[in-house]
Amino acid sequence: MFQKILIANRGEIAVRIIRACRELGIPTVAVYSEGDKDALHTMLADEAICIGPAPSSQSYLNMESILSAAVSLKADAIHPGFGFLSENSKFATLCRKCGITFIGPEPEVISRMGNKSEARNTMMAAGVPVVPGSREPVYTPEQGKAVAQEIGYPVMVKAASGGGGRGMRVVECAEDFEDQFLTAQRESVSGFSDDTMYIERYIQNPRHIEFQVMADSLGNVVHLGERDCSIQRRHQKLIEESPSFALGKELREKMGEAAVRAAKAAGYTNAGTIEFLLEPDGNFYFMEMNTRIQVEHPVTEAVTGVDMIQEQIRIAAGLPLSFRQEEIRLKGHAIEVRINAENPDKNFMPCPGTVKNIHFPGGNGVRVDSAIYNGYRIPPYYDSMILKLIVHGPDRDAAIRKMKSALGELIIEGVDTNLEFQYEILCHPAYMEGRTDTAFIEKYFE
Amino acid sequence: MFQKILIANRGEIAVRIIRACRELGIPTVAVYSEGDKDALHTMLADEAICIGPAPSSQSYLNMESILSAAVSLKADAIHPGFGFLSENSKFATLCRKCGITFIGPEPEVISRMGNKSEARNTMMAAGVPVVPGSREPVYTPEQGKAVAQEIGYPVMVKAASGGGGRGMRVVECAEDFEDQFLTAQRESVSGFSDDTMYIERYIQNPRHIEFQVMADSLGNVVHLGERDCSIQRRHQKLIEESPSFALGKELREKMGEAAVRAAKAAGYTNAGTIEFLLEPDGNFYFMEMNTRIQVEHPVTEAVTGVDMIQEQIRIAAGLPLSFRQEEIRLKGHAIEVRINAENPDKNFMPCPGTVKNIHFPGGNGVRVDSAIYNGYRIPPYYDSMILKLIVHGPDRDAAIRKMKSALGELIIEGVDTNLEFQYEILCHPAYMEGRTDTAFIEKYFE
Repeated sequence: MFQKILIANRGEIAVRIIRACRELGIPTVAVYSEGDKDALHTMLADEAICIGPAPSSQSYLNMESILSAAVSLKADAIHPGFGFLSENSKFATLCRKCGITFIGPEPEVISRMGNKSEARNTMMAAGVPVVPGSREPVYTPEQGKAVAQEIGYPVMVKAASGGGGRGMRVVECAEDFEDQFLTAQRESVSGFSDDTMYIERYIQNPRHIEFQVMADSLGNVVHLGERDCSIQRRHQKLIEESPSFALGKELREKMGEAAVRAAKAAGYTNAGTIEFLLEPDGNFYFMEMNTRIQVEHPVTEAVTGVDMIQEQIRIAAGLPLSFRQEEIRLKGHAIEVRINAENPDKNFMPCPGTVKNIHFPGGNGVRVDSAIYNGYRIPPYYDSMILKLIVHGPDRDAAIRKMKSALGELIIEGVDTNLEFQYEILCHPAYMEGRTDTAFIEKYFE
Repeated sequence: MFQKILIANRGEIAVRIIRACRELGIPTVAVYSEGDKDALHTMLADEAICIGPAPSSQSYLNMESILSAAVSLKADAIHPGFGFLSENSKFATLCRKCGITFIGPEPEVISRMGNKSEARNTMMAAGVPVVPGSREPVYTPEQGKAVAQEIGYPVMVKAASGGGGRGMRVVECAEDFEDQFLTAQRESVSGFSDDTMYIERYIQNPRHIEFQVMADSLGNVVHLGERDCSIQRRHQKLIEESPSFALGKELREKMGEAAVRAAKAAGYTNAGTIEFLLEPDGNFYFMEMNTRIQVEHPVTEAVTGVDMIQEQIRIAAGLPLSFRQEEIRLKGHAIEVRINAENPDKNFMPCPGTVKNIHFPGGNGVRVDSAIYNGYRIPPYYDSMILKLIVHGPDRDAAIRKMKSALGELIIEGVDTNLEFQYEILCHPAYMEGRTDTAFIEKYFE
């Protein structure tokens, strides 16, 4: 097992990883920016080292700074969390060169799945259904228009390097194509320095269903069931749950098998997520693979009983998976709500500031993952998510009632949050009846 | 199902019950004393009504006041929690007379098991092993001494109505008998207005092993495994866990069967606990039955996945148990630590006062049950327990590490607590190795 793990992240996920390491008996190193001197992860780790100024590019994205911290403090593994360097194959390669284990898949796999065209081709070769679309990269409106004509409108124009909704446009008809394509491409060039685009059929109002997979270095690949992340606002997930209201036993098995096939085709090790779009008729399409732990992993932990961060660490240390496929049973229903420091009445503008009075809910089946505390000053440099509230109940209705009860107890004063907005979603009849798709927020709340 | 439940209690257990009701969709009424105007349970319930001055005798023990609150606010059931009126058969009878369901066993059963001699005789008749001792009540030192002579020293002198260590004395030899007997009897008369005593063999350094049972009104009785509550200070439990380090599969089955037999013999319904003393050689003896929910019920909830408060409510409403014996599997290991507002350096003197800065631990498998909040003034009138921290891990070692990690994160400022004392217990080699019995604290910490 590792002697010391450096956590190349901040916020609640850094705290989450520190806790997992403590539970495994492994000492931890936190890295922190100058803006995070008073952050919880900085205080909780066994050692903490400053890696640069507050802007991420100079600290949490600064590979040299992080690697020299790991080398000088003798960490033999790095957990990248999510975001930042977690899907950066160059960083994973540098870790390897320094003799440090990157807790995640091999750099080559990160590259392969990070490039959308390559990921898509890998899936097609493995017989995993993908959304009909361009097989080759597209660079000009003319090329793109020809593909769109072939697959039929509406189509989605997507940046190969994109993510989080940037570099993406829906095109309804041929007349709009050139404009929308060029806009998306400009976003891609400015955001990701890459003009590679591709075109695919636009799936209308699908559900976002993702499958958690875990693979060890001995060739065992297991899926841990699905998460339904259909409640999104502008491609940012708001509420996630497991299992999905829309999946029966048969469809779960079919999609689970496809997910395992996808992970095997990718040559995957460690924890990863296969994201699918699911149409109302039960057709599903591979969308992308996330080659890291996800924000919403706690709902899977709740229904499977597997500690996914500890499992990631064990896998990276060369140990076999601690469970077999047939041992994974989804028990009950779990829901996660993301609490962001933002103002829903001001177009969800982030609201950093000082947290003045916190009260966490508790009790049976209620989990809080957070890095805020009384008097904590939320810095303006990072993601606005400040707390994840996760509940676990015997079924979906019970879990919704539990979440409403827990949200009702949660107090965060001093900064604006989306707490009430989330509460309203949970109270919406369409949500309660499980009639959700990725257009839910747009349809009912905008 | 009930239309409205009144909770005849305060503190964390009242909050716990309110949460369970919310999750079942049942409105709640809190009762509160004048000292509990700002208590969390008062604020969280759907309705709240003041039932008298702060001293318990005038409020939380005031049956008329509580029943008239229930009648006037149209509650059709009362949950008594633990302590206060929870094992008061007169109160249960009065509830019945008012047409209100008492969430617990029948008054006759409370009486039967509340009287130690009667409980003992019931168990003997059912073939449940009891500690050798007096079969009849004992009222004078002379009667007692004769019994002691028969069963052999050391013996335990116990008040029939006693509890929590009051009215109990260990007698080492015949010379000391009269003095110790009279002291214990005086405590019983002043504490419980009862001079009924009994004598039993003193079991040296046993483990305290209790079995959770649940029985519905259709005759189904199931046990939910054991809790090891050996870590006690002066008969007050400090740390509880499930399963016990000392029980293998065979002994668990044997004791579980005895517990079910005991509950059946008592004519039991709802949640109850059969407390046993377990000797190192595997012999076990019935000690007493608690005819109510217990402080430490969350460890059983963690390992079984059963929500025991919700189950209590369902049973009281006439529904069958929602599980069968063969469905109960103890999964992983759970530990509960009780945090009290008291000063271990001043002989554990209670320290009421204003809580100034609270920080709760969180994360996977960490549960907090509490009724304190920032700025809350802990009143001096009630029990000093202010928080229960419960962890659930894959095995005992992992659970201990998780508990240490979580305790390390817990901050409660403004009042003294036993937090560090508890941490030291967890770090003690004898605790870590599972070498615990009811003399543990005395042996290593006094």
